[in-house]
Amino acid sequence: MYLRQLCCVQLTRSPAFAVGFHMAGIALIGCGTVGTQVFRILASREDRFTHLAGAPLEVRHVVVRDPGKKRDPGIPSTLLSSNAEAAISDPAVSIVCELMGGIDEARRILDIAIANRKHVVTANKALLAEHGASLFSAARSAGVSITFEGAVCGGIPLIDAVRRGLIANEITAVYGILNGTCNYILTQMLDRQTSYADALAKAQSLGYAEADPTLDIDGTDAAHKLAILASVAMRENIAFNAIPMVRGIQDLQLTDLIAGRELGYTCKLLAVAERVDAGVQLSVRPTFIPSSHPLAKVDGAFNAVSIYGDAVGHVLLYGRGAGGGPTASAVVADIIDTAIGTAQATFDRLGPYADGAKAARVVPTDENETAHYIRVELVDRPGGMARIAQVLADEGISIASLVQHAPEGSAGSEGVPVVATTHVTRDDVVHRAVDVMNKLDVVRGPVVCIPAIEERPEF
Amino acid sequence: MYLRQLCCVQLTRSPAFAVGFHMAGIALIGCGTVGTQVFRILASREDRFTHLAGAPLEVRHVVVRDPGKKRDPGIPSTLLSSNAEAAISDPAVSIVCELMGGIDEARRILDIAIANRKHVVTANKALLAEHGASLFSAARSAGVSITFEGAVCGGIPLIDAVRRGLIANEITAVYGILNGTCNYILTQMLDRQTSYADALAKAQSLGYAEADPTLDIDGTDAAHKLAILASVAMRENIAFNAIPMVRGIQDLQLTDLIAGRELGYTCKLLAVAERVDAGVQLSVRPTFIPSSHPLAKVDGAFNAVSIYGDAVGHVLLYGRGAGGGPTASAVVADIIDTAIGTAQATFDRLGPYADGAKAARVVPTDENETAHYIRVELVDRPGGMARIAQVLADEGISIASLVQHAPEGSAGSEGVPVVATTHVTRDDVVHRAVDVMNKLDVVRGPVVCIPAIEERPEF
Repeated sequence: MYLRQLCCVQLTRSPAFAVGFHMAGIALIGCGTVGTQVFRILASREDRFTHLAGAPLEVRHVVVRDPGKKRDPGIPSTLLSSNAEAAISDPAVSIVCELMGGIDEARRILDIAIANRKHVVTANKALLAEHGASLFSAARSAGVSITFEGAVCGGIPLIDAVRRGLIANEITAVYGILNGTCNYILTQMLDRQTSYADALAKAQSLGYAEADPTLDIDGTDAAHKLAILASVAMRENIAFNAIPMVRGIQDLQLTDLIAGRELGYTCKLLAVAERVDAGVQLSVRPTFIPSSHPLAKVDGAFNAVSIYGDAVGHVLLYGRGAGGGPTASAVVADIIDTAIGTAQATFDRLGPYADGAKAARVVPTDENETAHYIRVELVDRPGGMARIAQVLADEGISIASLVQHAPEGSAGSEGVPVVATTHVTRDDVVHRAVDVMNKLDVVRGPVVCIPAIEERPEF
Repeated sequence: MYLRQLCCVQLTRSPAFAVGFHMAGIALIGCGTVGTQVFRILASREDRFTHLAGAPLEVRHVVVRDPGKKRDPGIPSTLLSSNAEAAISDPAVSIVCELMGGIDEARRILDIAIANRKHVVTANKALLAEHGASLFSAARSAGVSITFEGAVCGGIPLIDAVRRGLIANEITAVYGILNGTCNYILTQMLDRQTSYADALAKAQSLGYAEADPTLDIDGTDAAHKLAILASVAMRENIAFNAIPMVRGIQDLQLTDLIAGRELGYTCKLLAVAERVDAGVQLSVRPTFIPSSHPLAKVDGAFNAVSIYGDAVGHVLLYGRGAGGGPTASAVVADIIDTAIGTAQATFDRLGPYADGAKAARVVPTDENETAHYIRVELVDRPGGMARIAQVLADEGISIASLVQHAPEGSAGSEGVPVVATTHVTRDDVVHRAVDVMNKLDVVRGPVVCIPAIEERPEF
């Protein structure tokens, strides 16, 4: 039926990149861990990449704050400068590879690159999460591409898989472990039966967490990545500040990780983008995942993303989300994609942040629907559990389980811990019930509430 | 240093696809489960795909053996015919989508398509595993592309990830669970403590295994996929018949799955392509994987592939490897990739089966190096274990563990099972030791030998 409405259209236009791309010179802006690895890979695989791209990929400039600083001996000092404008405006440069990080200065660099009609490769998640839509619009006007595989989950070829590989699908949900630092800490807490503070200290000593780990552990880093990933997956514009719920792992207690595990759940800092009738649910927060789900089995500093498409079902991608080698792997792939012209075609045709793409209708946090885990410390006298059950009943919350949980080594003097799990319920309803519980005289200390994902057949 | 040798080359050529691609008409050859889903997805997302591709993706012909047969009501009968030649030679058709399966007739169809300068999309793993190099060469001569994402692991966007997303890397190893039927059976055997025969019967009753499951369970299907996947990953030509070791799961015994689990291993039908000094090791066979490895946790009818790159480290991709929806997801992505011109650029530039690519130097099976699991049933008298240890010592085999294994419920009358695990050893050395053991008077019944992968830091 649909076929009869079509006339046979001839695709005679040449793609823009066939005429827009003329040179393979590269300006590297920023040369820390990732930039150094990008340089090394390009240098060590020169012959193969020249063969693939049809011309050498020549790094002509390496722009750094302090060109006099001691660096990897493989980077010739003649390439180093601190003058980004001069590097970008070199007529032999066609690709500007921004690896400096930060937002304001990086934005300025990308504006200069786009104004000079240079293609952009970037791994800057914060920048794209804040300014993606306007940068992409400017690049389209200038006829250049922006590629950003390294911005989300380092070496995992995720953006391309979602945008191109799964293009036939409506993506119904994306669940991601997007921050390796948090995942390392949570894995350590359970494996070593240790506190958050001790696990963080170990992560810092091993280099998995920065000296100031705030942006990792408070969920900001994962939310930056979610904004980009969700924009690609949902094909709507989702800016960082549109994510209504961003919580970190800093308040998690080992006792809840253990209690959750006994109920068949594993706690992860989970980034969620889920299409529901009311729009898109977006959140980053500690979440219980059924332990049988592949994401629950992702241990240590790894990242992983589960994507649900209506044709493909469940697809999961797993790998290292940070570090020089993995991120450089993605950046170099983008450089080659740009050099052979496919980046421009993909950018022009497949979005994300397509011109005219509407902002996603984000479901307000209170209306988010999910299962919940609730832990209450009761004073040790009869009737406490009944009161908790009654509070849940009064709010119309359907209870999946209600058990007294005595963690190993817990002393009776601290009260009787009771753990409830609910079926899918709106966040505001559960939080109202928690507020009521917090005021009960049988309850000691603050009630803990952690969202949970129910096991579903498509898992 | 490498930079000074380069002159600045201008990329002025237009990519071939900018001039070679003119129409978006599609001929579907074959319309079973996958073809029907491809048609439905194209029809239901007509508007979006038209917008993406810049012109409608119009299915103009659906070629089937019996056009009169009752089919999905969404496929207009006016499109149906049994004349592939006429469909392919329709000047308005630019993409031939081969979903008929089989080898000889499919090869004939692709030859006709290429001779008519039509782009090819195929999900035919057997065909590419047998004839990939010559088909790709013919397509390059004719200036058309062949895409085949659906041929390996259905909906997982695997080929593109390896070829394009990980292009910066030297791929050192690929380990794959490439057959969902076998993985379902192995998962069932352990979960339900059931025999191979019973698990197969259950798989057949649920539609996870064909009435004649031979090609799945004997490893042939996985080996077809490995030939293609390894060709892409290793960037050398690897034909199906070059894989020196293809074994299936039909002789596996539950007792070995259990014994392996107790030693920290999970048994999977594993396809391996691994670069070693002597060339590429290639095999498909039941293999013990450390239970902590993410591949060991892949349960049921899912597929998953671990890829190790020298920059990216370990990347794993997971999803459904078969079925109409997942495979159609990949086929439709290929159709769009072809329509927007990126398939041609990728095909021309990134291989696989590149013209001039050399055939891989495949390590003969006997020279394969891996750890091994060996189970011996001893008659119940003193000295048996010492004799086994001596045989291994005589061959210079380093023992990782040697334990008497009494599986639950086993009766003493059947002998004393002893399980040895070795460190990495050449296959021929281990097989020689097994031959010696089989002749010992203390040994009852045939010795079981299963390769194992040792845990490594990069896991």
